[in-house]
Amino acid sequence: MKAPVEYLLHLADNALILGQRNAEWTGHGPVLEEDIALANISLDLIGQARLLYQHAASILGNGATEDTLAYFRDSHEFRNHTLVELPHHGPLAGTAIADRDYATTIARNFLYSAFMLLLWEALQSSKDEQLAAIAAKSLKETRYHLRHARDWVIRLGDGTAESQRRMQAAFEHLLPYTQEFWTASPHEEQAVRDGTGVDTASIREAWEAEVDETLREATLVRPDAKGYVPRGKVGLHSEHLSYVLAEMQSLARQHPGATW
Amino acid sequence: MKAPVEYLLHLADNALILGQRNAEWTGHGPVLEEDIALANISLDLIGQARLLYQHAASILGNGATEDTLAYFRDSHEFRNHTLVELPHHGPLAGTAIADRDYATTIARNFLYSAFMLLLWEALQSSKDEQLAAIAAKSLKETRYHLRHARDWVIRLGDGTAESQRRMQAAFEHLLPYTQEFWTASPHEEQAVRDGTGVDTASIREAWEAEVDETLREATLVRPDAKGYVPRGKVGLHSEHLSYVLAEMQSLARQHPGATW
Repeated sequence: MKAPVEYLLHLADNALILGQRNAEWTGHGPVLEEDIALANISLDLIGQARLLYQHAASILGNGATEDTLAYFRDSHEFRNHTLVELPHHGPLAGTAIADRDYATTIARNFLYSAFMLLLWEALQSSKDEQLAAIAAKSLKETRYHLRHARDWVIRLGDGTAESQRRMQAAFEHLLPYTQEFWTASPHEEQAVRDGTGVDTASIREAWEAEVDETLREATLVRPDAKGYVPRGKVGLHSEHLSYVLAEMQSLARQHPGATW
Repeated sequence: MKAPVEYLLHLADNALILGQRNAEWTGHGPVLEEDIALANISLDLIGQARLLYQHAASILGNGATEDTLAYFRDSHEFRNHTLVELPHHGPLAGTAIADRDYATTIARNFLYSAFMLLLWEALQSSKDEQLAAIAAKSLKETRYHLRHARDWVIRLGDGTAESQRRMQAAFEHLLPYTQEFWTASPHEEQAVRDGTGVDTASIREAWEAEVDETLREATLVRPDAKGYVPRGKVGLHSEHLSYVLAEMQSLARQHPGATW
């Protein structure tokens, strides 16, 4: 049994785009150790994306490869959550490197990793055996990503007045985007029906508990997640994804096949 | 016995700046697999730089840390070879991402790794025991870096007419910069005298043979290395280093100590 291709692309695109975003810190972080930690997390995520693209490409056939899927689809064909495509800036900051907000980076990694830990755990029982194997491998990596992010949420939340203010603002900014986790897209519904995917409703309670517990320990107030529900996973993206893709795809599109 | 701090900084700066340069490909490469390979090489290099900075900082004392050494020195205080600070563009290309030349990246990694493999090998016998230990660890990583670069030099050199033209142009551009390998700076002379460093004259023959053999196998013509001898390792840098440092240091300088 194979999972729906769109479902695999959804999982792959989440990992690729967040991997890409986190890689923007490489060589620009405030401390060398964190540079390396984020770069390692990026490499794990891009590695997960590659396995999922390879699997999707083998189902698609017809000349599809991990590279055609990563570099030759346009923004509206990407199936990632809107959360992972946002820049590392709060809603009010500029876009210069010096305006990047590490609290935003950390809050997103926390919210996403806490979700993916539970999703990968459940996907280990997918009827798509290859997806189940990818889930088992990704689960180990995601455990480390969640630990890294949670430690920083607590360290900054329960830190100075300024670091607490920034962590709180990051969660106020990002938590509404997590509403997308709980609204099933058609490809998710199909995957749940055929036993290859996971109904996110089944992992919601555990995710909410993880968020509550971590924010409590970080002395942060959990904001409401309300307002507009983003729909990146059905292809309705923010303008930010276009910039990520333009940077990421320009070279591959100029040298298709990279054979010169 | 401890190596001269300037000698440690020379080794650390080489690794940091080249790691930084190679990291510029993350998420911008022509194929996902190469993205990940270069990112891994970057992580190794930045890891080597961290160990060397930590060692230098412990000798310096006085509040020095790996981060103060990486982020709070200015261009003229950096001791890296000019070769590693050059952009990924041939001498005539523009600076847009799409103008990056992978052949330049590969030729530089080849020339540098072939040199460092021999240097780390010899530095395993340094009278500075900590440096000897760092050399042993770095040697293993550098073996992989050299193999990766050499494979690509041969694949592209002995590839299409266009890929051969590009590899040849990359070596014509970069080989003159390797003259800096063989002109000793005062801190290298001091390190050789006290037995903590290596006289590069002792590894030159092996390096020349490696370059000759690889270019022959790649069906490339070895260009002359003549003209201006760069002197980055005594602090006389090209304007390119300033751009690398501006990008790399801006955030740390805005948030010194990263404690907010």
